[in-house]
Amino acid sequence: MIRRLVAEFIGTAMLLAAIIGSGIAAQRLSPQDTGLELLENAVATAAALVVIILVFSPVSGAHFNPVITLADMMLGGLNAATAAGYVVAQLAGAVVGAVLANLMFTLPAVEISTKARSGPGLWLAEVVATFGLVLVVFSLTRSGRSTLAAGAVGLYIGAAYWFTASTSFANPAVTVARTLSNTFAGISPGSVTPFMLAQLIGAAIAIATARLLYPIPSQRRDDGA
Amino acid sequence: MIRRLVAEFIGTAMLLAAIIGSGIAAQRLSPQDTGLELLENAVATAAALVVIILVFSPVSGAHFNPVITLADMMLGGLNAATAAGYVVAQLAGAVVGAVLANLMFTLPAVEISTKARSGPGLWLAEVVATFGLVLVVFSLTRSGRSTLAAGAVGLYIGAAYWFTASTSFANPAVTVARTLSNTFAGISPGSVTPFMLAQLIGAAIAIATARLLYPIPSQRRDDGA
Amino acid sequence: MIRRLVAEFIGTAMLLAAIIGSGIAAQRLSPQDTGLELLENAVATAAALVVIILVFSPVSGAHFNPVITLADMMLGGLNAATAAGYVVAQLAGAVVGAVLANLMFTLPAVEISTKARSGPGLWLAEVVATFGLVLVVFSLTRSGRSTLAAGAVGLYIGAAYWFTASTSFANPAVTVARTLSNTFAGISPGSVTPFMLAQLIGAAIAIATARLLYPIPSQRRDDGA
Amino acid sequence: MIRRLVAEFIGTAMLLAAIIGSGIAAQRLSPQDTGLELLENAVATAAALVVIILVFSPVSGAHFNPVITLADMMLGGLNAATAAGYVVAQLAGAVVGAVLANLMFTLPAVEISTKARSGPGLWLAEVVATFGLVLVVFSLTRSGRSTLAAGAVGLYIGAAYWFTASTSFANPAVTVARTLSNTFAGISPGSVTPFMLAQLIGAAIAIATARLLYPIPSQRRDDGA
Repeated sequence: MIRRLVAEFIGTAMLLAAIIGSGIAAQRLSPQDTGLELLENAVATAAALVVIILVFSPVSGAHFNPVITLADMMLGGLNAATAAGYVVAQLAGAVVGAVLANLMFTLPAVEISTKARSGPGLWLAEVVATFGLVLVVFSLTRSGRSTLAAGAVGLYIGAAYWFTASTSFANPAVTVARTLSNTFAGISPGSVTPFMLAQLIGAAIAIATARLLYPIPSQRRDDGA
Repeated sequence: MIRRLVAEFIGTAMLLAAIIGSGIAAQRLSPQDTGLELLENAVATAAALVVIILVFSPVSGAHFNPVITLADMMLGGLNAATAAGYVVAQLAGAVVGAVLANLMFTLPAVEISTKARSGPGLWLAEVVATFGLVLVVFSLTRSGRSTLAAGAVGLYIGAAYWFTASTSFANPAVTVARTLSNTFAGISPGSVTPFMLAQLIGAAIAIATARLLYPIPSQRRDDGA
Repeated sequence: MIRRLVAEFIGTAMLLAAIIGSGIAAQRLSPQDTGLELLENAVATAAALVVIILVFSPVSGAHFNPVITLADMMLGGLNAATAAGYVVAQLAGAVVGAVLANLMFTLPAVEISTKARSGPGLWLAEVVATFGLVLVVFSLTRSGRSTLAAGAVGLYIGAAYWFTASTSFANPAVTVARTLSNTFAGISPGSVTPFMLAQLIGAAIAIATARLLYPIPSQRRDDGA
Repeated sequence: MIRRLVAEFIGTAMLLAAIIGSGIAAQRLSPQDTGLELLENAVATAAALVVIILVFSPVSGAHFNPVITLADMMLGGLNAATAAGYVVAQLAGAVVGAVLANLMFTLPAVEISTKARSGPGLWLAEVVATFGLVLVVFSLTRSGRSTLAAGAVGLYIGAAYWFTASTSFANPAVTVARTLSNTFAGISPGSVTPFMLAQLIGAAIAIATARLLYPIPSQRRDDGA
């Protein structure tokens, strides 16, 4: 169990360092074009996400996301105590990753974001973004193809940065930790709660869809990833 | 059958949300360089396409495109009734996806595009684009390598956005739905019919070519994707 | 045999359409930044190349390049008559692909390039570029991993567009056909011969290196690709 | 043994040619946006790295990095004499690659960089960058998934160019050789020692983490890569 929690902790820390760190670099290096900044941020995040999932998935399943952990629990993959441990490890890791990103770029360790992200379009976007993410993960696992999850999740998030109006947070731990950096990737604390509600709604629709599409989970255990 | 139609419906909706949503984001964020907008749109679309195919292919084959469904019927993979159901689901899904993209970016749910896309160069481009797409799909399936189709189709469309002058619609359902967003990815209704004719011509040449290159379809069923 | 020649012909035509077509699109859409043009051209070419190799490799081996065909002959994979047929098909396909690209973008079918590409740095770059390409192909095939060749060749060419000063032609058929489009991807006829000589030198060094690294070709036949 | 050293020598030369060559090209072609330069440099480097690892891994393991060689020795994969040979081959190859890049772009064969890269943020970034790289490599190998290493390392380095403030050198041989080109990718000799110390610290933490996460190395030998 301790190995699994360590994996969730370090993995989520690396994910946040990647998201926020690449956001800061993009903002500094491409100040003239917000689109180019988002492209740089999206490509770096997607690539990092694939690798982080590959590294940790044999140990913990590589959730790094309370919504995935919750969905896995509801679909019978985890008990409640383990799920609670995962969520704590994810939140702690996310905070450490945000601090690391700030420190690497010689910013204060913590600086609360003032970037409001609010409105029905963004909330709908978070529903769509989280629906897609959860559907990708559980379609692949329920059809015995979880070795494809690392690549698929990375590609999905890279795309969803663009096609959702919210740049696809789709993860409560990420949402919380991104309040701690007043930079490109930040979100003000006041915008967090509706984002999380939207994420839960998207996840619920995705779980129902995954059950409809793949009614019987594959018996074949994927080894490796 | 209902699961297959649901898969085609949701998959095509996600595809159109990705195409139009990333087009809107690109247009807003990179207004100074049309090339950068297309790069952002192409990368996001290609990445999303790979994932959407992976998610739905075990259920429906992940067509999301009436031309693919028609070709599959002609090559013996589907009967006419199923094909008709697929096309209806694809068209309905495409419309829903376009509306979703508009709403996420707080635009009117439907706004008819005024962007004319017309001329012999563009029509030739659609012939080439659809020829390539259909050839990719059926070369891989007829040689028993359909597990490679998701990645190959995503890469192909990402490239064809650039090397065809039309940015590679190559899909009648996509073409119709893109009339419903007056943004970067839109096409005016008056430009639709010649695009569709060109797509059918390209598909016909591709079917003949696939039969020439791979005369005997592989007996080996790919499992998984 | 006819199927193999058709595969080399169509595949090389698609490759040139991709190279020149994406070059024209990049030049038109991103006129303010040559680097962005090359990035767009490189990404589109690399993605297209992966797919084209996947489509045709079970039929012809997917050479699309006289230097690869020559190397394959020297390493015992093809006899001289077949090799000659391949080279003719590649040159014919390359010309057709260049014409197609010009026509899609409503340019004259053929327009001789005036872009001089000359000098010792560029020639050294072509030696390096072709060395790398031939080494990649024959390292993978001689170690029984030819199913990885499509992805590896695409990634290699995408990178070599950047790290070689010549943007990595590395292919005599491509070099000849690129004289036929007076656009971003063009090369003037007077620059062709030294490029070809450099390509042959690079290939020769690569064959020797591949023999040193992998002295005994793998007996295992890869199926599929 | 000689084949292994040749592989490390040529592979590291190709890696440095890719890093420095694409850096020079990016600097020349996209002078108006440092972010775009880094994006071009990162994408080209990542793609080249995947291919170079694929080409040489069956021969030498494709280290190209004294820190990886040292870690492999500490984890029981190499004896000290072989490790010493590897490091010499890597350093020699790195220098040759830097010279090749300079010559291709018609610069002096060697020009000492004047670009200072110094400060606690950058040093922390090198700790993080090297920690991640070493953890990726040994998590995959210790869990019997070394065939995924080429892709994972390429994606990791491409991302780490962005999310670490130092653009992720993470390799003492690369660090030394990049002093030899006074261009985009250069580093002044005075900045080298703290970078190397940071890299060693990051590697040490990674080795401990890999042992914790994967206490028992997989017995299954991966063949191929």
